Amino acid sequence: MQLGMIGLGRMGGNIVRRLLRDGHTAVVFDQNPEAVKALVEAGAVGADSLEDFVSKLDVPRAAWVMLPAGAITEATVKALSGLMQADDVIIDGGNSFYGDDVRRAGELKDRSIHYVDVGTSGGVWGLERGYCMMIGGDKAAVDRLDPVFATLAPGIGDIPKTPGRDGRDPRAEQGYIHAGPSGAGHFVKMIHNGIEYGLMQAYAEGFDILKHADSEALPPERRFDLNLGDIAEVWRRGSVVSSWLLDLTASALATDEKLEDYSGYVEDSGEGRWTINAAIEESVPATVLSNALYRRFRSREDASYADKMLSAMRKGFGGHQEPKKS
Amino acid sequence: MQLGMIGLGRMGGNIVRRLLRDGHTAVVFDQNPEAVKALVEAGAVGADSLEDFVSKLDVPRAAWVMLPAGAITEATVKALSGLMQADDVIIDGGNSFYGDDVRRAGELKDRSIHYVDVGTSGGVWGLERGYCMMIGGDKAAVDRLDPVFATLAPGIGDIPKTPGRDGRDPRAEQGYIHAGPSGAGHFVKMIHNGIEYGLMQAYAEGFDILKHADSEALPPERRFDLNLGDIAEVWRRGSVVSSWLLDLTASALATDEKLEDYSGYVEDSGEGRWTINAAIEESVPATVLSNALYRRFRSREDASYADKMLSAMRKGFGGHQEPKKS
Amino acid sequence: MQLGMIGLGRMGGNIVRRLLRDGHTAVVFDQNPEAVKALVEAGAVGADSLEDFVSKLDVPRAAWVMLPAGAITEATVKALSGLMQADDVIIDGGNSFYGDDVRRAGELKDRSIHYVDVGTSGGVWGLERGYCMMIGGDKAAVDRLDPVFATLAPGIGDIPKTPGRDGRDPRAEQGYIHAGPSGAGHFVKMIHNGIEYGLMQAYAEGFDILKHADSEALPPERRFDLNLGDIAEVWRRGSVVSSWLLDLTASALATDEKLEDYSGYVEDSGEGRWTINAAIEESVPATVLSNALYRRFRSREDASYADKMLSAMRKGFGGHQEPKKS
Amino acid sequence: MQLGMIGLGRMGGNIVRRLLRDGHTAVVFDQNPEAVKALVEAGAVGADSLEDFVSKLDVPRAAWVMLPAGAITEATVKALSGLMQADDVIIDGGNSFYGDDVRRAGELKDRSIHYVDVGTSGGVWGLERGYCMMIGGDKAAVDRLDPVFATLAPGIGDIPKTPGRDGRDPRAEQGYIHAGPSGAGHFVKMIHNGIEYGLMQAYAEGFDILKHADSEALPPERRFDLNLGDIAEVWRRGSVVSSWLLDLTASALATDEKLEDYSGYVEDSGEGRWTINAAIEESVPATVLSNALYRRFRSREDASYADKMLSAMRKGFGGHQEPKKS
Repeated sequence: MQLGMIGLGRMGGNIVRRLLRDGHTAVVFDQNPEAVKALVEAGAVGADSLEDFVSKLDVPRAAWVMLPAGAITEATVKALSGLMQADDVIIDGGNSFYGDDVRRAGELKDRSIHYVDVGTSGGVWGLERGYCMMIGGDKAAVDRLDPVFATLAPGIGDIPKTPGRDGRDPRAEQGYIHAGPSGAGHFVKMIHNGIEYGLMQAYAEGFDILKHADSEALPPERRFDLNLGDIAEVWRRGSVVSSWLLDLTASALATDEKLEDYSGYVEDSGEGRWTINAAIEESVPATVLSNALYRRFRSREDASYADKMLSAMRKGFGGHQEPKKS
Repeated sequence: MQLGMIGLGRMGGNIVRRLLRDGHTAVVFDQNPEAVKALVEAGAVGADSLEDFVSKLDVPRAAWVMLPAGAITEATVKALSGLMQADDVIIDGGNSFYGDDVRRAGELKDRSIHYVDVGTSGGVWGLERGYCMMIGGDKAAVDRLDPVFATLAPGIGDIPKTPGRDGRDPRAEQGYIHAGPSGAGHFVKMIHNGIEYGLMQAYAEGFDILKHADSEALPPERRFDLNLGDIAEVWRRGSVVSSWLLDLTASALATDEKLEDYSGYVEDSGEGRWTINAAIEESVPATVLSNALYRRFRSREDASYADKMLSAMRKGFGGHQEPKKS
Repeated sequence: MQLGMIGLGRMGGNIVRRLLRDGHTAVVFDQNPEAVKALVEAGAVGADSLEDFVSKLDVPRAAWVMLPAGAITEATVKALSGLMQADDVIIDGGNSFYGDDVRRAGELKDRSIHYVDVGTSGGVWGLERGYCMMIGGDKAAVDRLDPVFATLAPGIGDIPKTPGRDGRDPRAEQGYIHAGPSGAGHFVKMIHNGIEYGLMQAYAEGFDILKHADSEALPPERRFDLNLGDIAEVWRRGSVVSSWLLDLTASALATDEKLEDYSGYVEDSGEGRWTINAAIEESVPATVLSNALYRRFRSREDASYADKMLSAMRKGFGGHQEPKKS
Repeated sequence: MQLGMIGLGRMGGNIVRRLLRDGHTAVVFDQNPEAVKALVEAGAVGADSLEDFVSKLDVPRAAWVMLPAGAITEATVKALSGLMQADDVIIDGGNSFYGDDVRRAGELKDRSIHYVDVGTSGGVWGLERGYCMMIGGDKAAVDRLDPVFATLAPGIGDIPKTPGRDGRDPRAEQGYIHAGPSGAGHFVKMIHNGIEYGLMQAYAEGFDILKHADSEALPPERRFDLNLGDIAEVWRRGSVVSSWLLDLTASALATDEKLEDYSGYVEDSGEGRWTINAAIEESVPATVLSNALYRRFRSREDASYADKMLSAMRKGFGGHQEPKKS
């Protein structure tokens, strides 16, 4: 089927390529004409303005917006919807806050425009591995787009079937689900990322303890000089902690065991924060997910005000004078 | 080669079976004659006492102890070593505390008996998938046992090769490593389990938030009734959070989405605790791993003294009267 | 000076009483005529409607709203402001979310009505000890109300002076501060409560460890049967952990060391949650404050879905069968 | 009564001074003759060797060891006990691990020498405010030393009596308790310090959020430029979070609101770690106390290996390139 794509960065561009490879057609638009040109060469129809883009889409239209979450996506959805008509579908495939989806879907409903939110995981590997997609929206629109999702999804592949799933929605095994009404897709993706932070922190802490197993704070007979790359590798086979994140860790450690390429400064995208906000709204104790987020916050601080205050108190009650940080 | 096995429970028994299948021979002993009998039927040589067991082993002997960590393993290693001689090898394949390995290896060294500690992951799946093994001990002994480890390990299988590993120890790709001197095997396995707790808690919290996405504390337009089984399934394909633990979760949710078979009481084995003790010794902030352990502790309490004290304070300063627990 | 008070619950009523005792006058209103009557007997002027209340206030008016945060306060401020005029002051002394203050102050500014938010700590003890107040609003309004705040505040009392404060705002030593523009008062009070949760949890955990010092999990020679009431009492004198919360704890333990009056269910008011939301917005790692909140969430759950999921995984990889909860 | 003191640092020296002031006598010894000389000038009897020290004590002897916990205390107790006889008392007033007390008391019991462990809080303020003492040992020895404890303790002072304590041990109100057998004193002191870490971290995080309330990440209308010194000061009066630690914080902020004197590096003494070890042994979820300790560990790291590993994974799955740390 035909899909329009606005935003031809790494994610948007690769989504189009994966669709074209599988026989779909695409109309593409980006502020950057070079990005449009590259995809036209790959077989897409290019547009040089939003108006041009909309006019080149067959009705009922399907337009996928793949832009940074926040103001840009907001403005684009707004402009786009102004050019569209009843029964068209706008898809937000970025990392929008699910509350924004709920609001936008409500606004567009008055004009009978469908709004579908797609949370995608797979990152830079999606073109090759396929995209894991969590989709929110009304059934009619999601069903209409099924050929697109079926192509983008990873498919069953050689991953063993989960026993006991007979009679359940077969799309999940293909790598995409219709999670619920508008917003549900990004909600599920948000939690996915929250979990991701927790998993990453668990590995990071474990390897940190392994790394310091040769610490001089330990008695000599209990010090070990461990090969972290081999440990990550061995856990990939038959262990309880095997995962794709571990595969990536093994890969990083294979060539840079000291991780000297990294400064220790760790960013976070919004999803981890929104996950905590959601947990708090629901009164769910998200202990580990929150602490994982906070460790990232802490990673960006050099000398924390909180820590200085601890030292001030220690000096106050005990006369303790902290050493300078090296 | 020939291996002796003491302790023919699920783990010990299956290890012997996997060895026999691959052409090795085994002498086996267990307090329970039925367990011995079952393995004799599978092709092993049975022994009816520790003395009989030792006498049936070819010198230099290799005797694997696969018993519950603690007093039983301690006593068995002691009794066994009394019957063995220079150049024999005792292997502890259980979940011993690595500090005990260090001590035992030191004691046996005086008599030139080798002590090898093997941390194994793979649980009930090991017979079929192979055992992921982390091995501590002196090089001579570990090398001598290599045929055994090579058989027990999962092997390369169809898991993609990690780029950049050329020239590194090929055993890691087969699913076993020689981690270091005695104790190093169980140390690495201990951290493996610590990580496991963190990973499990991350998934559990994420699904808990998904589960409560229909909470009445939320505005109606932001409530979702999500299909947790489908969510677990879809994340198995192409997502960043795919893992074996997720596979197991998908499997559990496929047939019991409400998890009604479980009471909420969660045990822990010692490794999670030892991991925290090690982190504290090394001054490594094991935030997430500790919190994962504490959530298990908390799961076993009905009405916590700590919580009651919070209520007592709240009453003291604010006259707050807590509701009774339903 | 004259103050109007809407909401004559424990807090509002006692504030009026403390003002009357010090020679101020008060106009009071409450939905409950009995509450009005009680304060009229104490010397206040009663009103039987919001209109009556406003008409009895001298211009420029000062009306303090002391109602539950949320819808009731919102509606009351709205109705009240409709009856007031330029240069009047509306004071919200409840536990409102500071973002609501910012919004309301902006709306009222157009009509030149001042909006002052007062976070108060002191609870049921305020009548006697005075109220610790954190005030937000424009300088003119806050200064005009100074006689009220000076009376309500605890005053210097016999608390030792903090060295080095010469030249600083003397109001802080009296127990009230002008924290900043509208919203700042409730913001500071919010953080106060966030800290309160953390402090409470720290004591609760410490006493929990003391309580379990006789655990059978410990070797007999390291078990202690401790007198928690005496421990709380002794720490009140000369120790680093002395505090008012400890005083309250000592008081509770003096008569009920097992805290049998409490079920273990612990409520939270909104401030702890908002504190975490604020921390996340600011990228401040509020580790301990968050964990304190989560422990309260957890206290209200009997069998947590997250915990059940851990058991499901444990069964999946290890065949572990958890015991039933007693 | 007469007390011998070994170790005349700030703590030991001031304890002797406080005893002398109240009419007790003291025999003192320190490796540093200057320290001995200073106390002789204050009225103590000096000793120039351990032997001399013991010979100058009246039998039954009472010798207080006030030295750094660990090897020095261990060696001194051992040497001292070799010179002492049945019914003498050795007091360890340092910060020893309570397990060492249990062991030492057991060893000395065979020779009928009493061993008393005293956990003291009060730090540099003890001379003036008195020492809060938690005492472990057998009843006979602790009772015999009561005159010493009564002098060293802060006494009732002007701290309000806790209601409901009638009939309870009056020593707690004086600022000392006999917590239980040998080890119990240091055990209680250990938990005291664990709580202390939690309390400190709660304040530190709260002030950190207040400090960042002017963050550019916030919408302009919700940014506040708060006076942290005044906030700490106002909370000292009538608020729920008032405490001695808050007094010290107010004092620090009064003269250095940016805490520029501190590097952010925060030490820990052993008690916080031992508290976590004890909690783990008892299966008590010490969430907040552990996290407080970990934040100190983290404060000493510049670029954490764990954080680098997060970045490596982020690069692996998303191609994210972290910024360099400023």
